[in-house]
Amino acid sequence: MSHIQVGVVMGSSSDWDTMQHAVSILQEFSIPHEARVVSAHRMPDDMFAYAEAAEQRGLQAIIAGAGGAAHLPGMIAAKTIVPVLGVPVASRHLQGVDSLHSIVQMPKGVPVATFAIGTAGAANAALFAVAMLARQNSQLAEQLSAWRAKQTQVAREMALPPVV
Amino acid sequence: MSHIQVGVVMGSSSDWDTMQHAVSILQEFSIPHEARVVSAHRMPDDMFAYAEAAEQRGLQAIIAGAGGAAHLPGMIAAKTIVPVLGVPVASRHLQGVDSLHSIVQMPKGVPVATFAIGTAGAANAALFAVAMLARQNSQLAEQLSAWRAKQTQVAREMALPPVV
Amino acid sequence: MSHIQVGVVMGSSSDWDTMQHAVSILQEFSIPHEARVVSAHRMPDDMFAYAEAAEQRGLQAIIAGAGGAAHLPGMIAAKTIVPVLGVPVASRHLQGVDSLHSIVQMPKGVPVATFAIGTAGAANAALFAVAMLARQNSQLAEQLSAWRAKQTQVAREMALPPVV
Amino acid sequence: MSHIQVGVVMGSSSDWDTMQHAVSILQEFSIPHEARVVSAHRMPDDMFAYAEAAEQRGLQAIIAGAGGAAHLPGMIAAKTIVPVLGVPVASRHLQGVDSLHSIVQMPKGVPVATFAIGTAGAANAALFAVAMLARQNSQLAEQLSAWRAKQTQVAREMALPPVV
Amino acid sequence: MSHIQVGVVMGSSSDWDTMQHAVSILQEFSIPHEARVVSAHRMPDDMFAYAEAAEQRGLQAIIAGAGGAAHLPGMIAAKTIVPVLGVPVASRHLQGVDSLHSIVQMPKGVPVATFAIGTAGAANAALFAVAMLARQNSQLAEQLSAWRAKQTQVAREMALPPVV
Amino acid sequence: MSHIQVGVVMGSSSDWDTMQHAVSILQEFSIPHEARVVSAHRMPDDMFAYAEAAEQRGLQAIIAGAGGAAHLPGMIAAKTIVPVLGVPVASRHLQGVDSLHSIVQMPKGVPVATFAIGTAGAANAALFAVAMLARQNSQLAEQLSAWRAKQTQVAREMALPPVV
Amino acid sequence: MSHIQVGVVMGSSSDWDTMQHAVSILQEFSIPHEARVVSAHRMPDDMFAYAEAAEQRGLQAIIAGAGGAAHLPGMIAAKTIVPVLGVPVASRHLQGVDSLHSIVQMPKGVPVATFAIGTAGAANAALFAVAMLARQNSQLAEQLSAWRAKQTQVAREMALPPVV
Amino acid sequence: MSHIQVGVVMGSSSDWDTMQHAVSILQEFSIPHEARVVSAHRMPDDMFAYAEAAEQRGLQAIIAGAGGAAHLPGMIAAKTIVPVLGVPVASRHLQGVDSLHSIVQMPKGVPVATFAIGTAGAANAALFAVAMLARQNSQLAEQLSAWRAKQTQVAREMALPPVV
Repeated sequence: MSHIQVGVVMGSSSDWDTMQHAVSILQEFSIPHEARVVSAHRMPDDMFAYAEAAEQRGLQAIIAGAGGAAHLPGMIAAKTIVPVLGVPVASRHLQGVDSLHSIVQMPKGVPVATFAIGTAGAANAALFAVAMLARQNSQLAEQLSAWRAKQTQVAREMALPPVV
Repeated sequence: MSHIQVGVVMGSSSDWDTMQHAVSILQEFSIPHEARVVSAHRMPDDMFAYAEAAEQRGLQAIIAGAGGAAHLPGMIAAKTIVPVLGVPVASRHLQGVDSLHSIVQMPKGVPVATFAIGTAGAANAALFAVAMLARQNSQLAEQLSAWRAKQTQVAREMALPPVV
Repeated sequence: MSHIQVGVVMGSSSDWDTMQHAVSILQEFSIPHEARVVSAHRMPDDMFAYAEAAEQRGLQAIIAGAGGAAHLPGMIAAKTIVPVLGVPVASRHLQGVDSLHSIVQMPKGVPVATFAIGTAGAANAALFAVAMLARQNSQLAEQLSAWRAKQTQVAREMALPPVV
Repeated sequence: MSHIQVGVVMGSSSDWDTMQHAVSILQEFSIPHEARVVSAHRMPDDMFAYAEAAEQRGLQAIIAGAGGAAHLPGMIAAKTIVPVLGVPVASRHLQGVDSLHSIVQMPKGVPVATFAIGTAGAANAALFAVAMLARQNSQLAEQLSAWRAKQTQVAREMALPPVV
Repeated sequence: MSHIQVGVVMGSSSDWDTMQHAVSILQEFSIPHEARVVSAHRMPDDMFAYAEAAEQRGLQAIIAGAGGAAHLPGMIAAKTIVPVLGVPVASRHLQGVDSLHSIVQMPKGVPVATFAIGTAGAANAALFAVAMLARQNSQLAEQLSAWRAKQTQVAREMALPPVV
Repeated sequence: MSHIQVGVVMGSSSDWDTMQHAVSILQEFSIPHEARVVSAHRMPDDMFAYAEAAEQRGLQAIIAGAGGAAHLPGMIAAKTIVPVLGVPVASRHLQGVDSLHSIVQMPKGVPVATFAIGTAGAANAALFAVAMLARQNSQLAEQLSAWRAKQTQVAREMALPPVV
Repeated sequence: MSHIQVGVVMGSSSDWDTMQHAVSILQEFSIPHEARVVSAHRMPDDMFAYAEAAEQRGLQAIIAGAGGAAHLPGMIAAKTIVPVLGVPVASRHLQGVDSLHSIVQMPKGVPVATFAIGTAGAANAALFAVAMLARQNSQLAEQLSAWRAKQTQVAREMALPPVV
Repeated sequence: MSHIQVGVVMGSSSDWDTMQHAVSILQEFSIPHEARVVSAHRMPDDMFAYAEAAEQRGLQAIIAGAGGAAHLPGMIAAKTIVPVLGVPVASRHLQGVDSLHSIVQMPKGVPVATFAIGTAGAANAALFAVAMLARQNSQLAEQLSAWRAKQTQVAREMALPPVV
């Protein structure tokens, strides 16, 4: 059994609709992973424990999604040197602008790699994790190249017929 | 010697220009207080330790100022039931809109009382702490009423002469 | 019969959908309270009378919710030294950004403690009022700590099962 | 001596740099007027007294300028049926966006006529007051028409020479 | 038959849903008025003709509503000294922020009195027109005062019953 | 058979709902055109090939629509001197503000002519292309003038009946 | 002497600092042009006359720059079928966001091709005009291609030396 | 001599003031790197060539900074599976909000890891690259941990002395 390489955490179970798009990608690439709710505000000690253990557990990346005053990605990043990938979940009133600001505007010294608001960002965070892992795994690199090539092919096929 | 009633914390020493306006108000009302840099991202364990000790130390309120992805007020609030007053420090590029979003948009369950961006917010957080304490201290309530009355008087005196 | 400790006011009866989340929390903690519509613009004298009487009536906090050009929290704060907690109600066109600006950006000297836009903010304003009262009431402090612990427990239980 | 027709009020003496542009226009058209600081938050009773007296004093319009959580125009409008013209003063951090939201987004029933952020808005509020008065004063209407014609003439003369 | 005192114009027939709220108020106060679509961009000459004739026709105010790049209020104001009241109609993608900017940010010299985005703004523009006319018509002033008093009464009656 | 004069490209087949409004206008004016999906991010080489061939193929204009991080119009413009007309497609969370910023804020040296967010922008980009072609084609100029005249006529006919 | 092909108009002489960047480009390509202040709000009749004459005068494009409630480009476009290129001039308080909204958000039927805020947009509007003219002028097309090639060359030469 | 592991590219030489903060971090950690101007819009072929060669050259990450319509990070990401880290450079008028939107809002399938606007983002992109490399290099991981520990130490030492 492979050990977990990517942890997917989210601030609330309501974030699952968004974050499952990250999990789908990881499944598609057969990356050993886990998915958990770890609320920065309601489970701060669990969050710190999760972050503190990440390096020893061999995690290669942590994908963290949260909405509103989205502190989860940044606080995990404050507690580990494992790369943290942040996903701004769309919020009810501000459409994720607040989530984006809370995640991307980290101060110098503690980076969070931030992706697009919502499901596209969740999927892309996972694809980015794959790309990171692919730097040390030529088979995975080929798999990712093939995935990208297929994506191009599908896009070409969806091209509209010429209208004259 | 009175014990500390209000803790003033900030994410960076560069926040002092803003947060000293909170300290000035506390001094003016002779509220025993302390001021410290406790960076959420660079000193996460110190931050948690500070928050965890707050109730036992008898703190009645914690004023927390931070800029950008401002996680300090919300994370302290996640670790204590002592009331947390958040001050959005103006950020370099987004003028504190990011700070405001990161502080005020807390999820249900973990409140942060938020004040205006910048020095007005810092002073007002301290005045709010005074108002809280005044609920149990009639002398302080009188002092605050007098402060407000004087403020009204000064505003009246600064009124422009009529122009006809 | 206990006397009223927290007043909940709102600018319009249409704000009730939001503000009832504050009342629910106060009920949950058995805080004696009242809820009223007091429109800053349509009932300005009632608003002033309410604010002027607040301290003598023994109110420990006033939770004020309003939307759009939301003047209610700030104008009550201008007329009393009782702590005012402001809730930006989501507006129809600007999603509560206007409400937030009108409530949080108070000038130095007259603070309003501001919470998140919408129902989360309403609930949190009430939780903050509980936290304030808990500073002088150890039984309430324990009750609040227990509430927070239970919230943590529920969040943990909602954590997704690991996906490997 | 003519009695006052237009009152110019502002929330702070620091608003004078902006609001003097309203006064200049009123002087240019010889409209009897007055200018005063009446802070909504620091002088709420004076503000209400001013608004309550406005109709009896024969004021035809009140120009009110304020910044940040700018409650002055809306609260005066809540207390009088004399037309209120609001000027959003540019704020330090949010450039007057907060002022604009606080002034223009009034609820149905209590209108505030709002003008541009800053000095252009102050001048235009006064020009609008002149236009209102001109509806009942044909001499003033001619004066305003002439002012506008001259403005057109000046704009034409400032046209750049053709570049070929 | 009274002659028209207030003209209500709008940029598109789709603006009627918003602008009818202005017409309702004018009807309620029995103000002689007219309502027309005059598109700034599709009927520019009609718009200029309308504005040019306004003063001679005895119009006391023009209420102009438009959305998006909302040029109608400002361009009418450029062509007449009759007071122009602008209503930002909510736009499809930007919720009326674009409409508000296009209407309120007029340059010095050509004022447009701007009201809230959407139906509240339309109603308030009409109420403001009533307030303007009431300055020269004591009966209308009494009618407006009564309308405002009734509004206060209704708001009071909608106040929620106390919750203890 | 006339050769293609205007190319309509879009970043995704989901943009068709918006971009068909451009195609409809081109059809209405009988402008020989084509419509294709050419994704900047999923088909970058196809995009470059399309842009590189544009001038030789005799294209007079390229209408490019995209949403979110909308790179298609700007990257095509980087590869051809054929005029590029950009249409910001409304995005899911940010309503097209991100699309607009990504298209309109091009650096000096590589222009993209940008139109309104959504369907209005798509139609207008096509009308602009017609206007460009009409500069060299007097018959098309007459056709466009007639189209505009009819638009004015329709707008006039939709004018509401006077309400008195 | 060649007749004028491109008209450059601006709302105020203060816009010259921005709009001269359009003129410089036209000079560099030896495009016969003119530059004039034509204020939409202070010179509305001149603006209409300018637009009405444009087609007969043989103008191939009109570049119009304005700030704030920037109505000039859209109103010229409403009066002519000559292509109008709009430049949002940076405004004092809102940095040109208001100008951009007022120019780009035109309704279906009357297009304005919009460029970036400020000097980059002014230069690009002119480059776009050159690109339009180049469609019918192979010598100009070559000149533009050469200009672009040189720009690429300069950019390459400004590339930083490798840092290893 | 080690081969290049991280490429730092930027859209313009004016971005160097920002991007040198990325280079400084890479130097501090002795990561073999290079820094080049590769403009997406003025050097599109060079950009594609750079991206196409990246994987074969053994680059482990590409840090790409750009401002305004910032297409560089996303277009490089479209052409390689090497991880791309995007830095929004602050723009003149919109303070980098446009840059942020253009970089972070990538569609599903082509991720760009985005960092904060300006110098903090540049430094953090480099720190993130170090963290990525550290996953396969235990010595670098120790070096990064030490760097973070020192950062914590410095922050502690800059803590203000208690004020009582």
